[in-house]
Amino acid sequence: MTLSLPLAASIGDPAGVGPELFCAAWALSGAEALPPFFVVGSRALLEQAAHRRGIEVPVRTIAGPDEALEVYDTALPVIDLGDLPYTPGQPDEAGAALALRALETATGLARSGTAAGIVTGPIAKSRLAAIGFRQPGQTEFVAEACGVTPRNAVMMLAGPSLRVVPVTVHVPLRAVPDLLTAELIRTRTAITAAALARDFGIAHPRLAIAGLNPHAGEDGRMGHEDADVVAPAVAALRAAGIDARGPLPADTMFHAEARETYDAAICMYHDQALIPLKALDFDAGVNVTLGLPIVRTSPDHGTAFAIAGTGTARAGATVAAIRMAGECAVRRLSA
Amino acid sequence: MTLSLPLAASIGDPAGVGPELFCAAWALSGAEALPPFFVVGSRALLEQAAHRRGIEVPVRTIAGPDEALEVYDTALPVIDLGDLPYTPGQPDEAGAALALRALETATGLARSGTAAGIVTGPIAKSRLAAIGFRQPGQTEFVAEACGVTPRNAVMMLAGPSLRVVPVTVHVPLRAVPDLLTAELIRTRTAITAAALARDFGIAHPRLAIAGLNPHAGEDGRMGHEDADVVAPAVAALRAAGIDARGPLPADTMFHAEARETYDAAICMYHDQALIPLKALDFDAGVNVTLGLPIVRTSPDHGTAFAIAGTGTARAGATVAAIRMAGECAVRRLSA
Repeated sequence: MTLSLPLAASIGDPAGVGPELFCAAWALSGAEALPPFFVVGSRALLEQAAHRRGIEVPVRTIAGPDEALEVYDTALPVIDLGDLPYTPGQPDEAGAALALRALETATGLARSGTAAGIVTGPIAKSRLAAIGFRQPGQTEFVAEACGVTPRNAVMMLAGPSLRVVPVTVHVPLRAVPDLLTAELIRTRTAITAAALARDFGIAHPRLAIAGLNPHAGEDGRMGHEDADVVAPAVAALRAAGIDARGPLPADTMFHAEARETYDAAICMYHDQALIPLKALDFDAGVNVTLGLPIVRTSPDHGTAFAIAGTGTARAGATVAAIRMAGECAVRRLSA
Repeated sequence: MTLSLPLAASIGDPAGVGPELFCAAWALSGAEALPPFFVVGSRALLEQAAHRRGIEVPVRTIAGPDEALEVYDTALPVIDLGDLPYTPGQPDEAGAALALRALETATGLARSGTAAGIVTGPIAKSRLAAIGFRQPGQTEFVAEACGVTPRNAVMMLAGPSLRVVPVTVHVPLRAVPDLLTAELIRTRTAITAAALARDFGIAHPRLAIAGLNPHAGEDGRMGHEDADVVAPAVAALRAAGIDARGPLPADTMFHAEARETYDAAICMYHDQALIPLKALDFDAGVNVTLGLPIVRTSPDHGTAFAIAGTGTARAGATVAAIRMAGECAVRRLSA
């Protein structure tokens, strides 16, 4: 199946690696058989980023998504929100404002059904906060723009080897045990199961639920949350017909044979999920938001201001994010 | 360099996979170029375990370590502490008592300088506790038998891809933040640095210190322990001339390129260390105790009662533990 609508890519912070990586992805589009996408951002910025990276990328302004497919084979299509000087590694307020408008526009195009989904370039949260952005990150922003409470928008990180969902995310480790509830674990797992079926084509997804404590608590000898919170959540999920197993000792869940037994690992905290994902799939991790009315992916890395404009940032995660968004969108469009 | 003294292997719980795996390791000794070892345990048990596994392993009783080298080429040498029926998967008190005596004897032989070091087979902690064993595990038992406080005996897990040291180990996740002190991190890291130099031949070991919180706390936005506890420990270590870096975001420490930059990762809790180790090196993890007057290693798995006697337990970790003990012992003997 091929994608009949283009994906919308929001440019991200223009001082970060977003612009050059979308240019690099377009240049790899044939070799990687990527679905068609257009960038929401700035034509001049993209041209300068490609030039600085030393790659040949013609950039052409389009008036709307409907012009993208025609342009895509010969140029990178862009919805131009205005030009800015290209100053890689030196973020400023004008750039943050452009990143925010690009995100808003791309989300709106996907919501309206004229784009197949969105791929969001990396932003700097602290920069956006300085111009009044009140969400903790793009995931929450997109969720709100889609009318979904952030609690029901689930972050999944996916690589070639593994898919992981952290139940709690950007909180101090000390806060994790009290934030974990059976209801939260159930909600996140159920949303994950539904999304794996709808967007990833896995008819009967298998979910492996990690324990919180070492050895999943070892019968209460190392913490009581696995018995008191995680186990009841797993029981409730199973009662609801979801193929969930756990709580499993987290340290033995991520080797190759164990990974064969599930489609996604539901993890209790950030590093429990991100350590194995990045150990195994460092350059190809995709951040997918599950539970939204639109498809949204993102390369699983930040703005990398320190190397922006040097030509060394790797395009693997951006390529993977575009490919995954395309695959999810095809499944939705053909459902 | 070859080892001029044999290693002593304590048989572990006789109902677990210890007996068959030491037999399997002896059978692989030529192919794997293993250093010579003898088992402290039971001749009859080893013979039955080898038979049940379907491997040809002549077992010969020796009176002491000095006879082991001569025997080793043609038979597995054993210091026979008495016979027991071989009942894999069915642990009992007599077996636990044998495991404990074997551990005591092997430790004593290494302490006395007649064995080059010890490789301990897996035991069941709950079984040993039932017969009055008061230490939490073999590591603490061996430490005490060597006159070292458990605080100064450091557990390192080592595989082909990675070495990790958990600063806190078998405690509930909730307890970790309050157990972490700058002094504890410093002590464990300094012992690790000294052991990497003495036992692993790394003249100037590089230590990567993980942060506790996501993104190592991100300037206090996700927890204060990284700034308040981990960073001062790293500063003190550096002031003492130890090549320590951190606190580092734990999720980006374990991919292949990152691993090239250090010799061991110092982790703040059990799963932070064990998740990447077992994701990368599941079948070849070795548990090494650092900071002892004797060399001690162990395969990084348990008794596996469920598969004991079925012939399916893999010998990779036992082979790796014997090899690593031999390498460490050669360095100590030639120092």
